[in-house]
Amino acid sequence: MAELLAAVNPSKKLISLGTGDPAVYPNFFGGGREVFTDAVKATVSSGLYDSYPPAFGLPPARRAVAEYLRSVVKGSGYLRGHPLHLRDSDVFLTVGATQALQTTLSVLGPGIPGGNILLPRPGFSLYDSACVLAGVDCRYYDLLPSRRWEADPSQIRELADSRTLAIVVINPNNPSGAAFSGHHLLQIAEIARDLNIPIIADEVYGGIVFGGGRFIPMACFASFAPIITIGSLSKRWMVPGWRFGWFAIYDPNDTLHEVRNAAEIMMNINPGPCSVIQAAVPAILSDANDEFHESVIALLETCMDTLYKGLQQIEVLECYSRPQGSMFMMVEVDTTRLLGIENDMDFAKELMKEESVLVLPGSVIGLKNWIRLFFGLPTDLLSEACDRMNSFCKRRMVKNAW
Amino acid sequence: MAELLAAVNPSKKLISLGTGDPAVYPNFFGGGREVFTDAVKATVSSGLYDSYPPAFGLPPARRAVAEYLRSVVKGSGYLRGHPLHLRDSDVFLTVGATQALQTTLSVLGPGIPGGNILLPRPGFSLYDSACVLAGVDCRYYDLLPSRRWEADPSQIRELADSRTLAIVVINPNNPSGAAFSGHHLLQIAEIARDLNIPIIADEVYGGIVFGGGRFIPMACFASFAPIITIGSLSKRWMVPGWRFGWFAIYDPNDTLHEVRNAAEIMMNINPGPCSVIQAAVPAILSDANDEFHESVIALLETCMDTLYKGLQQIEVLECYSRPQGSMFMMVEVDTTRLLGIENDMDFAKELMKEESVLVLPGSVIGLKNWIRLFFGLPTDLLSEACDRMNSFCKRRMVKNAW
Repeated sequence: MAELLAAVNPSKKLISLGTGDPAVYPNFFGGGREVFTDAVKATVSSGLYDSYPPAFGLPPARRAVAEYLRSVVKGSGYLRGHPLHLRDSDVFLTVGATQALQTTLSVLGPGIPGGNILLPRPGFSLYDSACVLAGVDCRYYDLLPSRRWEADPSQIRELADSRTLAIVVINPNNPSGAAFSGHHLLQIAEIARDLNIPIIADEVYGGIVFGGGRFIPMACFASFAPIITIGSLSKRWMVPGWRFGWFAIYDPNDTLHEVRNAAEIMMNINPGPCSVIQAAVPAILSDANDEFHESVIALLETCMDTLYKGLQQIEVLECYSRPQGSMFMMVEVDTTRLLGIENDMDFAKELMKEESVLVLPGSVIGLKNWIRLFFGLPTDLLSEACDRMNSFCKRRMVKNAW
Repeated sequence: MAELLAAVNPSKKLISLGTGDPAVYPNFFGGGREVFTDAVKATVSSGLYDSYPPAFGLPPARRAVAEYLRSVVKGSGYLRGHPLHLRDSDVFLTVGATQALQTTLSVLGPGIPGGNILLPRPGFSLYDSACVLAGVDCRYYDLLPSRRWEADPSQIRELADSRTLAIVVINPNNPSGAAFSGHHLLQIAEIARDLNIPIIADEVYGGIVFGGGRFIPMACFASFAPIITIGSLSKRWMVPGWRFGWFAIYDPNDTLHEVRNAAEIMMNINPGPCSVIQAAVPAILSDANDEFHESVIALLETCMDTLYKGLQQIEVLECYSRPQGSMFMMVEVDTTRLLGIENDMDFAKELMKEESVLVLPGSVIGLKNWIRLFFGLPTDLLSEACDRMNSFCKRRMVKNAW
């Protein structure tokens, strides 16, 4: 990204569709966020939360996250009569979702030398680096554009072996924008059950689904296989800089006993999230803020539509399915029709050089000749970005000879 | 600690001398801290700092830490004509000092299989766990009560070999309360120079020295050996819960080039400190707050004296030297004269059971039959703690037969 940013055209203002940061243009998302900032101002002013917080997090904040997660699972209507097992003490507070996934991956591995974890492709680079840190191998199952980015369950089964430690599922999906069906999540839960391994459910974009889409938490299927759900304030609450996340262990049969112990040791050693943010979490997660979230999601859908429609005007770019959730879409680049563009890296670099539009080359996340686009920014900027990408592609397009 | 806490006598209010948290009784330290909280309230209110901060930290915060460190080094009067090399870009912002030391230790190791790090004993347990995580061995040099807790340089030299990666120096010292002399720091710098290794200078208690004592930053000796200085807002600014720390690389000859690269990779992967705290750091570190720090240190010295004098009344407890800095002292327990007390663990547990006074058993930090006491709390509580320890010891003391 640094190299791409350095290539910016100094005569054009940068428009970044490169990183998933919804707080760059906070005013765009209108009022409502003051509830979050007021909550932090109150905890800072009180002077009551300047001490070291407990290693697993402040109890009221753990309780608030647990309550939030329980209400999301119940509200999805997908429990289908299964009991819901989540105690407040099953929730651990982390420095963003990043620490949550690093901690989780690091404690799954040590028991089994040469262990592997099944990751979605295209994916999210932090999983790869967390696997390297944890000393476990990555194996990739493909998300298929032809299936609205769902995976092929038989491929997941074939990739797994006796050293497979977990399956990572990102839903709503970064980068594809898919919101997986209950049927598909059940398929994956059945695989995990058969393999006797947990699912790591990255639900950082949890609740961010658009009209017609539906968010079904993986924890609905915790009676099939243990689920470790990862989340954060970064997206739905739009405060990624505050670095507040969590992981929650749904493990009705206590099969993850050793994993939990190891996670607790790691949490005791590693520093946790900022105390004054933790103390504000009960107010931040309150369902009194539901109206804010609804208006943000409506606005995000408008953003997504603006980008989606804008891309349809560009001949050599193809977005196969309208995103159902998250803040991203994947777009295929027909490099064969672009002069001087060998691949997605070239595309991103030349686009930056000429039009100052930042996009993430798909090869960084496992899908060559695709790009990942973030749509959580003002619609006028998204339109402008489409115009610039259109001009760029037109200039570079190979002229047909006939 | 959890086990000790569980042993508390329910009929007596807990007094904790166990952990180094100066924010438990913030009102005791009087006015002045509002500057810090007001700064955070302003950055939260602005809505300008909710995005992901850069991986190495917000540039104004890095600059503020660099300026602070430069002024401390220059102000110590110990540069002795040596140039001071510290660019803003040599400073990396971390989730408390904990992440700083974990990052630092993790990047020293990989080049040399079976590498070792020299740690002070008594020490600070997070170094041991960080070494385990980093896969490097710990070797311990002794801090000697008979030398006001300075080390024996010849022991450090004897411990080192070709696989020694660094020497850790904690100054002002946790747990002994020593503030090392310039002469002693120079001795250690000369050893590091001869071994061609860096010094990790843990200066979390930097600037916290009492009348007669003096804080000399290890960076004064960066012309001898590269220094990686670790610090945080936790102690001097008394906001440990905010989880803001740093490490700064003083490396005039660029000998740590590879270590720095590895640290940058780690910082890119790992989550950093909360953005709104980072944004407030320039105001928090301003020298306009010097008066606050002076009054806190004067008060801390009174606390220390209260505890020191109180302990002198207790026959079986011995504190050999009045602390010159930090917020801790080490106290020897004459277990041979106490009935039913085999060692420091027994002492801590029985004291908790009977008197609800929490102390850290020295064996946890490498010194059996000593205890570590924190003195950053109100003087009336310190007096009360001394009275309770005195009663406890009197009840347990072996009666002389003659």
